[in-house]
Amino acid sequence: MKNISVCLSPELIHLFDLENKTVVVVDILRATSTITTAFAHGIKKVKPMDDLEKCRKLKDEGYIIAAERGGQMVDGFDFGNSPFSYMNPEMKGNKIAFTTTNGTLAIQKSLKASHIIIGSFLNLSAVAQKIKGLNKDVVIHCAGWKGSVNTEDTLFAGALIEKVIEDFEYNTDDATLAHNLFIQHQSDLRELVFQSAHAQRLQKFGIRKDIEFCMQKDEYDVVPYLDGDHLLI
Amino acid sequence: MKNISVCLSPELIHLFDLENKTVVVVDILRATSTITTAFAHGIKKVKPMDDLEKCRKLKDEGYIIAAERGGQMVDGFDFGNSPFSYMNPEMKGNKIAFTTTNGTLAIQKSLKASHIIIGSFLNLSAVAQKIKGLNKDVVIHCAGWKGSVNTEDTLFAGALIEKVIEDFEYNTDDATLAHNLFIQHQSDLRELVFQSAHAQRLQKFGIRKDIEFCMQKDEYDVVPYLDGDHLLI
Repeated sequence: MKNISVCLSPELIHLFDLENKTVVVVDILRATSTITTAFAHGIKKVKPMDDLEKCRKLKDEGYIIAAERGGQMVDGFDFGNSPFSYMNPEMKGNKIAFTTTNGTLAIQKSLKASHIIIGSFLNLSAVAQKIKGLNKDVVIHCAGWKGSVNTEDTLFAGALIEKVIEDFEYNTDDATLAHNLFIQHQSDLRELVFQSAHAQRLQKFGIRKDIEFCMQKDEYDVVPYLDGDHLLI
Repeated sequence: MKNISVCLSPELIHLFDLENKTVVVVDILRATSTITTAFAHGIKKVKPMDDLEKCRKLKDEGYIIAAERGGQMVDGFDFGNSPFSYMNPEMKGNKIAFTTTNGTLAIQKSLKASHIIIGSFLNLSAVAQKIKGLNKDVVIHCAGWKGSVNTEDTLFAGALIEKVIEDFEYNTDDATLAHNLFIQHQSDLRELVFQSAHAQRLQKFGIRKDIEFCMQKDEYDVVPYLDGDHLLI
């Protein structure tokens, strides 16, 4: 049986051996939910970047440029981190350069893995199917908030474990914590996330609608994966 | 109202501002349980140390020297990390130099705090009383296992929050996770800890008795605190 473990913050990822493993990067509010949504609406490729200025320069190479810091869109960019921005049919076929506070950093810190895929509640079952198919040990890499552990990414880790529990086993306490939290709260996931620190922060910017959207399960069947320096499906 | 937060691993402590705060250092299996037990049985002072060789040298200065690495006593030391070693009446009045895999490192990483105190289930109520009396914001610093989050320290954090919830509030997800975990499992704490990765590891060394002991609540009324480079009560 393959093993599944949970890294609760990018600040802990050095404790995990990623070699020959599948890493599922998770940033529910909102980077990985937004990336999933963008691909589901026909975006062709996404370049995740950590540096704001390098991201900005890709405008000249035909990219749509998107940046979020601290929960808000950065001035001078085309879009921020709201999934609703990427549903416009006119964006179909385009490529995006994308940098966010937490999610793109988690991708950068996962590069030793043999496969890096993008997980969210929106593509939960598709991700579960994918990691079963890859048949490698899995590390769920929660992006957290500026290094801190957060509720919504931990809940997703628990939800994904629950989905694959017949094919994967776990033996670390981070996985126990995440799985327990999900089991305890599966009937009131949204309530718990609305109470979370990050949701409170985002609600100040009036993006309750984004949070509601990101907590929906299995809206999309796409599984973005990293190929070189771009995400594709 | 004062704030209480939870740092789930020493690898995350740099994310917390400790200045003018009380830090409760927790390493349930077994450093902080053992330190609490030692003081309850008349040990006079404890010098927590990270370096094995420096610790060894204090033998010449009249210290009892104690060292644990990876769950086992280190060769050439007087004692390891079992609370039962420190109950001997002959040790009364002595001083101990003490180094362990996780607990003493968590103390070293808490030095910016205005007060550092030692918490365990064995002195839970006494610690709750103490932090109320100090009337400062609190960070519960879980020692974890070699940087990883663990179940037993997280449970203690939740238990301490529950004890002081009328005097402290929390607004970070780490605290939510710990408090939730404790609420969910307060009637089966031992079962959950016996399933934990660290307990499994220790049971291989036949120290189930230590784990049973460390999970008892309120056996002792002492609250060890750091004064300079020694713990005192």
